[in-house]
Amino acid sequence: MSIDTAISRLKPLLGNKLSLSQADRNLHGQNETYYPLTPPDAVAYPANTQDVCDILKICNEEHCPVTAYGAASSLEGQHLAVTGGISLDLRDMNQVLEVNAEDLNAVVQPGITRLRLNEELRATGLFFPVDPGADASIGGMAATRASGTTAVRYGTMRENVLALEAVMADGTIIRTGSRAQKSSTGYDLNHLLIGSEGTLGIITELTVRLRGRPEATIAATCRFPTVKDAVDCVILTIQSGVPMARIELLDEMMVKGFNAYSKANLPEEPHLFLEFDGTSGSAREQARTFEELAADLGARGWKTAERPEDRKALWTMRHSAHYATAALGKGGRIWPTDVCVPISQLAEAVLQAQRDAVRLGLTSTIVGHVGDGNFHAGLSVDPSDPDEMARAEQFSNALAETALRLGGTVSGEHGVGLGKQKFMKAEHGPALAYMRAIKESFDPNNILNPGKMLPLRN
Amino acid sequence: MSIDTAISRLKPLLGNKLSLSQADRNLHGQNETYYPLTPPDAVAYPANTQDVCDILKICNEEHCPVTAYGAASSLEGQHLAVTGGISLDLRDMNQVLEVNAEDLNAVVQPGITRLRLNEELRATGLFFPVDPGADASIGGMAATRASGTTAVRYGTMRENVLALEAVMADGTIIRTGSRAQKSSTGYDLNHLLIGSEGTLGIITELTVRLRGRPEATIAATCRFPTVKDAVDCVILTIQSGVPMARIELLDEMMVKGFNAYSKANLPEEPHLFLEFDGTSGSAREQARTFEELAADLGARGWKTAERPEDRKALWTMRHSAHYATAALGKGGRIWPTDVCVPISQLAEAVLQAQRDAVRLGLTSTIVGHVGDGNFHAGLSVDPSDPDEMARAEQFSNALAETALRLGGTVSGEHGVGLGKQKFMKAEHGPALAYMRAIKESFDPNNILNPGKMLPLRN
Repeated sequence: MSIDTAISRLKPLLGNKLSLSQADRNLHGQNETYYPLTPPDAVAYPANTQDVCDILKICNEEHCPVTAYGAASSLEGQHLAVTGGISLDLRDMNQVLEVNAEDLNAVVQPGITRLRLNEELRATGLFFPVDPGADASIGGMAATRASGTTAVRYGTMRENVLALEAVMADGTIIRTGSRAQKSSTGYDLNHLLIGSEGTLGIITELTVRLRGRPEATIAATCRFPTVKDAVDCVILTIQSGVPMARIELLDEMMVKGFNAYSKANLPEEPHLFLEFDGTSGSAREQARTFEELAADLGARGWKTAERPEDRKALWTMRHSAHYATAALGKGGRIWPTDVCVPISQLAEAVLQAQRDAVRLGLTSTIVGHVGDGNFHAGLSVDPSDPDEMARAEQFSNALAETALRLGGTVSGEHGVGLGKQKFMKAEHGPALAYMRAIKESFDPNNILNPGKMLPLRN
Repeated sequence: MSIDTAISRLKPLLGNKLSLSQADRNLHGQNETYYPLTPPDAVAYPANTQDVCDILKICNEEHCPVTAYGAASSLEGQHLAVTGGISLDLRDMNQVLEVNAEDLNAVVQPGITRLRLNEELRATGLFFPVDPGADASIGGMAATRASGTTAVRYGTMRENVLALEAVMADGTIIRTGSRAQKSSTGYDLNHLLIGSEGTLGIITELTVRLRGRPEATIAATCRFPTVKDAVDCVILTIQSGVPMARIELLDEMMVKGFNAYSKANLPEEPHLFLEFDGTSGSAREQARTFEELAADLGARGWKTAERPEDRKALWTMRHSAHYATAALGKGGRIWPTDVCVPISQLAEAVLQAQRDAVRLGLTSTIVGHVGDGNFHAGLSVDPSDPDEMARAEQFSNALAETALRLGGTVSGEHGVGLGKQKFMKAEHGPALAYMRAIKESFDPNNILNPGKMLPLRN
């Protein structure tokens, strides 16, 4: 029973769908943030569910770790094979299997990315609404319970995955959920797998909700004298029930980052980036309602963008926040944070994060899906500077404590992976034991993404 | 280790919060449908979470079954103590603990009913939107993943419970979810408990989402020459994206039932009962859009109701469907069904149900939350007529098969309880083993609502 034995058994089975090359292994050991290079022992490229099933059966018998790999855009090292073993790259399982336009859903394989899916849906007038910024794989998005700028309107992956096919640790293929809009039968394994980060099963097929493309979309920007003014505007907007399609906060440092990285030439003050959609009349009415509400709270520089290319430019800039933040410092890497708090606590959490960054001498931007109470204080760090990394960790710990004190969560959308495990006990308390019980009963040999999500017992 | 020992240990602990009276036991053994009287051995009335914890600790040690009891409005016998033991009546845990108006949520105890909750929210301008018709307890609604007429707009309990406190089989108190809008940390135990029918833990506190009361609400009714015309109208409406607040189908037999039971004097043709809400302008626009769409599909007799008392009369009649159906037959009891199918399959499922009822010589009404693809063929039965009961069972089996064949579920909102267990294997296949694994690991002595949800192995 070993990783080597598993690989030698997988070779004849998979042929050229198994790669041992150093280049491939290194590629699969990289990540977007500050975790060191972590190559797996081998990379498998399953072509279908049966391949996944065969691989898991062998790996389960040999106690060989298997870590699912999508687009590698996860921010907490979820795809890194930290205990070695197989990186299960789902890139070749990337098909749209069905588009059920009448039922507003599509059946897809996990390796398809969200931009490719929306490209394939173009002719139907429908789209898949969850938008985390990165061109993530749909399987990876489900596995980390991802969301992004549009969650305030359309929900997260939790609300947008109707059904799954998954292969469990011993190779059993199960189906969860159904194509019906709702069901009251059985334990909700669908939601149990969504957000389980590949630790309970490998998602091999997803039925996702689609939406009709809105008739009209209006993007807009405005700025505020202080972050508190901007956040107060967000809170009032959400409470007033204006149906926002996107409402994103950028603090002064984030705007500075965009000016440098995207040549944006924005006044270096806190901004809101907004989107309204619906019928032509309702989108306009929403924008007007918001504009009036914001003006009362000190908003300036109201600008709208209706042409698709202008809207795209705005959201492309917004989605470059990760790289724009990294570029602000000399280290060029990001220490991401991702707290989410009740909307009434948002101003306190954001201001506390800004104060902590100043206190610790860190370069931090704040950008966030504030309509959900979710924001990212992104630290630009140099992993080779141990003192800076220690201060980044202090910041991250303090922010997590703030979020939990305010009734929130340490991660709104990035997930736990490697970086947030240490907060799991504080966030979940005695419930953690029940999570462990599920893991132990579903994956007794601990082959599925070991070392993630659940911290070691102490 | 026995039920008797458990009761003798509970007596000194609970005092007059434990009842052994035959009247109390009989009351807790009744149900709304066709299951026989099933009295528990004793009824406990916990006053707080600690009482629940103490009760479960003793019952777990003594292997004594514990079945949660809310408002007893469940339709699949979920609250019946079929293996004896304790009926855990949560009526005294019925407080609104917090209303967080800024965050649009409330923290409540499980025994409060939805009408009482909305009564208490009246002054806030907010309301709790899930409406199953019956004045169910909020804890029971979460436990059965209930929904109802408003789910097409506001979602089911799955979408409207942010966080829970629950007492697990051994007395451990856990918290799931948080007050934040979203989270990506840990396995989704919140959704695992929602819909678990008291078989995994006892819900002792819920944080539920609230919504702002819409500025305007318009109810409406219209009728169609055939059920197929009405269903086609529903399908087109949902696909067109008109945001319906309610859209309910009633077949000719259901209308007949209302005419008899509620003196409604409606033309005995298939009807849709509708509701539109939003700003005054948008509700009116939605109603007009629907009216035009429906007229093209043969709708007649369009009538709107805007006064609160007229709308209330309409929905009160709709909510009497259960008793109006029962009154159509001589037996006076209901055999409820509750399939939910993809909306594209709705017409086929409804027509098949009507044909099956005729073929089997049964008195059946059809009424449903058709915007979700969910409908109820309600059979009026006489439990003392074994032949009729056998035909009712044939009907129910055939309808379940139809739903599964069409990609749906055997229960959209009533749950599994006693009556739907036999379909669990067909609906969930190999996933059922993983549900069993969770049950065994959370409740190794099988004290929590034994005999429900998961069928015996075969």
